[in-house]
Amino acid sequence: MTVASNLSAVLYAPGDLRMEQTAIEEPNEDEVQINIRATGICGSDLHYYHQSKIGTRVLERSNPMILGHESSGIVTKVGSKVAQLSVGDRVVIEPGKSCHYCQRCEEGRYNLCPTMKFSSSLFQGPNQGLLREYVCFPADLCHKLPDNMSYEQGALIEPLAVAVHAVGRTNTVKVGSCVAVIGAGPIGLLVAAAAYAQGATQCVLFDINSNRLSFATSYLPTIKTVLLPLKPPTETSLAWAQAYVEKHLGDYAEKIDAVFECTGIESSVGLSMYLARRGGVVMLIGMGTSQCMMPIDLISTREIDVLGNFRYSHVHPKAIAMISEGKIPTKGLVSHKFALKDTLAAFETVKKGGEGVIKVQIGDF
Amino acid sequence: MTVASNLSAVLYAPGDLRMEQTAIEEPNEDEVQINIRATGICGSDLHYYHQSKIGTRVLERSNPMILGHESSGIVTKVGSKVAQLSVGDRVVIEPGKSCHYCQRCEEGRYNLCPTMKFSSSLFQGPNQGLLREYVCFPADLCHKLPDNMSYEQGALIEPLAVAVHAVGRTNTVKVGSCVAVIGAGPIGLLVAAAAYAQGATQCVLFDINSNRLSFATSYLPTIKTVLLPLKPPTETSLAWAQAYVEKHLGDYAEKIDAVFECTGIESSVGLSMYLARRGGVVMLIGMGTSQCMMPIDLISTREIDVLGNFRYSHVHPKAIAMISEGKIPTKGLVSHKFALKDTLAAFETVKKGGEGVIKVQIGDF
Amino acid sequence: MTVASNLSAVLYAPGDLRMEQTAIEEPNEDEVQINIRATGICGSDLHYYHQSKIGTRVLERSNPMILGHESSGIVTKVGSKVAQLSVGDRVVIEPGKSCHYCQRCEEGRYNLCPTMKFSSSLFQGPNQGLLREYVCFPADLCHKLPDNMSYEQGALIEPLAVAVHAVGRTNTVKVGSCVAVIGAGPIGLLVAAAAYAQGATQCVLFDINSNRLSFATSYLPTIKTVLLPLKPPTETSLAWAQAYVEKHLGDYAEKIDAVFECTGIESSVGLSMYLARRGGVVMLIGMGTSQCMMPIDLISTREIDVLGNFRYSHVHPKAIAMISEGKIPTKGLVSHKFALKDTLAAFETVKKGGEGVIKVQIGDF
Amino acid sequence: MTVASNLSAVLYAPGDLRMEQTAIEEPNEDEVQINIRATGICGSDLHYYHQSKIGTRVLERSNPMILGHESSGIVTKVGSKVAQLSVGDRVVIEPGKSCHYCQRCEEGRYNLCPTMKFSSSLFQGPNQGLLREYVCFPADLCHKLPDNMSYEQGALIEPLAVAVHAVGRTNTVKVGSCVAVIGAGPIGLLVAAAAYAQGATQCVLFDINSNRLSFATSYLPTIKTVLLPLKPPTETSLAWAQAYVEKHLGDYAEKIDAVFECTGIESSVGLSMYLARRGGVVMLIGMGTSQCMMPIDLISTREIDVLGNFRYSHVHPKAIAMISEGKIPTKGLVSHKFALKDTLAAFETVKKGGEGVIKVQIGDF
Repeated sequence: MTVASNLSAVLYAPGDLRMEQTAIEEPNEDEVQINIRATGICGSDLHYYHQSKIGTRVLERSNPMILGHESSGIVTKVGSKVAQLSVGDRVVIEPGKSCHYCQRCEEGRYNLCPTMKFSSSLFQGPNQGLLREYVCFPADLCHKLPDNMSYEQGALIEPLAVAVHAVGRTNTVKVGSCVAVIGAGPIGLLVAAAAYAQGATQCVLFDINSNRLSFATSYLPTIKTVLLPLKPPTETSLAWAQAYVEKHLGDYAEKIDAVFECTGIESSVGLSMYLARRGGVVMLIGMGTSQCMMPIDLISTREIDVLGNFRYSHVHPKAIAMISEGKIPTKGLVSHKFALKDTLAAFETVKKGGEGVIKVQIGDF
Repeated sequence: MTVASNLSAVLYAPGDLRMEQTAIEEPNEDEVQINIRATGICGSDLHYYHQSKIGTRVLERSNPMILGHESSGIVTKVGSKVAQLSVGDRVVIEPGKSCHYCQRCEEGRYNLCPTMKFSSSLFQGPNQGLLREYVCFPADLCHKLPDNMSYEQGALIEPLAVAVHAVGRTNTVKVGSCVAVIGAGPIGLLVAAAAYAQGATQCVLFDINSNRLSFATSYLPTIKTVLLPLKPPTETSLAWAQAYVEKHLGDYAEKIDAVFECTGIESSVGLSMYLARRGGVVMLIGMGTSQCMMPIDLISTREIDVLGNFRYSHVHPKAIAMISEGKIPTKGLVSHKFALKDTLAAFETVKKGGEGVIKVQIGDF
Repeated sequence: MTVASNLSAVLYAPGDLRMEQTAIEEPNEDEVQINIRATGICGSDLHYYHQSKIGTRVLERSNPMILGHESSGIVTKVGSKVAQLSVGDRVVIEPGKSCHYCQRCEEGRYNLCPTMKFSSSLFQGPNQGLLREYVCFPADLCHKLPDNMSYEQGALIEPLAVAVHAVGRTNTVKVGSCVAVIGAGPIGLLVAAAAYAQGATQCVLFDINSNRLSFATSYLPTIKTVLLPLKPPTETSLAWAQAYVEKHLGDYAEKIDAVFECTGIESSVGLSMYLARRGGVVMLIGMGTSQCMMPIDLISTREIDVLGNFRYSHVHPKAIAMISEGKIPTKGLVSHKFALKDTLAAFETVKKGGEGVIKVQIGDF
Repeated sequence: MTVASNLSAVLYAPGDLRMEQTAIEEPNEDEVQINIRATGICGSDLHYYHQSKIGTRVLERSNPMILGHESSGIVTKVGSKVAQLSVGDRVVIEPGKSCHYCQRCEEGRYNLCPTMKFSSSLFQGPNQGLLREYVCFPADLCHKLPDNMSYEQGALIEPLAVAVHAVGRTNTVKVGSCVAVIGAGPIGLLVAAAAYAQGATQCVLFDINSNRLSFATSYLPTIKTVLLPLKPPTETSLAWAQAYVEKHLGDYAEKIDAVFECTGIESSVGLSMYLARRGGVVMLIGMGTSQCMMPIDLISTREIDVLGNFRYSHVHPKAIAMISEGKIPTKGLVSHKFALKDTLAAFETVKKGGEGVIKVQIGDF
């Protein structure tokens, strides 16, 4: 196969994302080369597109970074020691390379590996991302896509993996559980779907946007939705959250076994804690702010487990099986598709947001 | 309401089950009186019907026992301190009265209470069962039936509770898990359904009876079934199980996260252990034999968790929600229904077994 | 036995604690009557002594409350149904009466029972406390004291139960673990001792008071201590905590499996989170403030489990065994003893605090 | 350093163990070269010495195997990429090389890696053992020995790791637990010590040999011991075990939270199950027989968790810390020491067994 083009989405500075040809890599002995066919845009990609930094790490113009890490594709070359994959296999890429030897990797929590190299991230990087035509990746991070799944569905596996990891880490989401999800974006929707798939029988979804909630009820017909008001500007987040739960959500008192906070906004974090039953779990998935006021007396006296959540470990094969076996719906999640050459238009669509924008994907489907 | 009749199925001796009028109880302050509307026949009822003993405990003719413990009904009277139930509420009875104060009760495993009084059981008894028109029971053991569920479905909750308890106790049945179930009777079918509902994506069901497996595939369309041959008469159970798994089930090697053994037969117990992956779980649900040869070297070197399972704790509300929310199918499970007066015919139907007998229920549906 | 006197420490209003005779109760069928011999003063008793309220609940002068809940004594009468205790048995009182029937009680977490009646607390109260000569208490909450333990040691069981519960709930304190404890008061010291007893090999204790740390090193010779500086007044708690850990505690980076926060102060809560290793646990034991700024990005990206902790369940017999078997040292913990008639002096001693005040007990030892 | 000699204990056939010079390996980039200073003889070494096979795997004379896998030593050379070790470091070798990439390795249970290469084992081998002067080993499997520990203590870490792993996997050995250990050999003794170190307050040790029990009480003064009679020749193992527990061990009924079976003998396996309380754990550590009769009705109706146990994962640093911090006694455990050249005499000592033989070590201490 002659490979001539490797069009790539390269970020140089805030808003300075260029479609450029980059070198095509050859796989080393443990890698495969993949022709990327679909890539979703993640919130973190948008964050880099806007600011080209994260925390104290800043992208240098002289050392630009290819964006993208939610990708599926087809194997085009195979390293000499790779036994489990062949040319022509359709795969989902798990985009984090962990060390396999540190204490966290050895105990099975490789998502916490301190030297993790995660595609399209500046930590331990810049680590070049997947918004390009060809990429080489370790074969053990390329998971086969069943015949009944599309590339589009394959590129949904990465956000679904976040959801499955979060739901799987709670010991309170089981057959018959009642859960709440705050934030009706792609992660919130997939968390709700994963909670149902793990046995939850009741799910309440909160958002401030009625369009998002409307989509949610078409995506998961049994879901209950609550349209949150904006917090009054003079009220503190916790006072608002406590009062709101007491006044409006009394029906859920002592019922919600697990709350998944997917916004990272202080008032929602507070809401999550007032919603959880005694002995329940609050799973913190949303990111945004670096610090947050929390009701420590409530956490203590109700023995609420407040658990941090970061990416995933060991869940890609499970997430693939869930979609393949029809246990996680995907209809409607990908609201917009763009060709790779139109990557900037795709980013602008995500940036604008607005009605009907759920997940935007880029590729050659 | 004038209550004149309390026809009851009273066991005096092996095969000597009589339909008799018994006294109608009045509820004490913590109880409700229930008009029973549907009762399933459990394997243990059949065992008592045949032998009127269990282990070393023997029913005395002078102290007979009403059978039945899988029941739903409607509340007809309410004790003075009962707040959560009213006359006319439709309920499922959880048939075990635990002490609430021993160490096992206090740590939440009330199914292990050494002084448990379980309906239609000779342990700590005889404890009068539920195959009668009226019974009084503690209100906290009567769980409301939602409007969208029938009495027939209500009387399936008790066996479903066994299944939900067993599946819930494994830490290896999660989103994406692969499970095996041995034995395609009512418990095996409900275990398979509960495993799917807890996230399993693959389930393999084993039985020696092709009719049972046929029903299983209509009940759970995605299930895979394996028709087991009878063990050759000269082979030991473990030798047969090991050879069978190695020759015929190689595809499942290192794949099955949890095996649910629902037969209690030695060759099946062996099969369950050869099927489990390294670090997997074997859940022992089936009862029958008192002792059994097990492959201890395999349990050790593969770190298989062999877990005993006994009835249930805390799962009735969850089981009810699962059926009410459509997560556990019930269609076809109740293969035969009889009026209370025809209880003996019902027992004879279960005794004969044969094609098409799944769960037999008795009542006024 | 003729009982003539029941001197009791009755709180009417802030600072208005009176030594009065109160009625002597007779045990009901499930209770025993106990002659209290030793009672420790808890921080919550001091809080009531100062403010006679907690949260929004205020003590009414017309409905005063006896203080005290850390007590041991000797059985003087036995209810008709009590089998496990006899007159003359020496016992430790577990001071919380839970309902035994709610969902939390049934699942074994009775410390979260919403109708818990806890001695010397205004919640669901006022619930009369144990600072008196005679009290009646349910027999199942009275735990026998072995012959080799003193009443003084018996009255240490209640705070030790808090420590054992907290340490036991972490899944990261095991053989070989490294833990940190913030706050060197009685609870912090007992948490450190309990962590060692559960297998921890390294423990670091933080406090702002060098006298407390000196006592700690005599109490637990292998402990490491860190004297914390006061936070500069212009710095926020989290900025201070992050900077302090990064500059001064680099040796502990990624080493501390569990942090026990026993102060309830915001800067210490922050410290606890910066100290924990990736995937580690922060156990919130200290109470004081109702809300607190926390580093949510750290909790998320490091998957730190932040667990609330409230009293205890099922640990009194274990805590007694630990002292009886010599696994928890008690020498020096009780720094001051007062007779019951001198209760006010005892409270004033705790109030003043200062060098050498660890645990103050009241009684007839 | 000039290395001239590499005397090694090479097994060719049953009883044919020869002291020979073997080639001295050079470390690859990830390895260190170690001068072995102490090696304990394990039961599996003795088994190979006797039979030169295990299960269906037989040692071929043309492909002999060096024995030994319980070793400590000093680093003599360091591979180019090794950062954490230097020449002169004293280390304990963890003798199993796992693949780091299979599902079991990735989830942190590397002891279950199907391609594990374990020193002095025929599985995936023969894998050359450590009874030689020099060996090269991956640096990440060489754990530093603190200054306060001897080579002799270092060579006890491997069996201690088995004990710590087994105790750590039970969720019922905590502060205040009661445990039983069957078999007073080195593993049984270390399991008892590890259970105490994890918080157990009561431990009962069973053996058929009074000398072993005498040593146990000097090694762990608080231990309780029970001298088991030999099973009557006409009784089945389970009948004997049940009767023995009912008649003689009634005091332990419903008390023992975890039983550690360290013999692998059928009657002891039965004993372990009759001893465990409802909801307790039986940990199967002893190996010997390939199959075993077990009381399945007891396992089921008492919900006993029967857990297999195989070697260890992640425990070497913890085991080292336990000895270094004085939490696991070692005095008296090494009953005999031999120089490397006298390896055959050492094996004959273990083979003869008899009074006073606990652990035999070989080396240059």
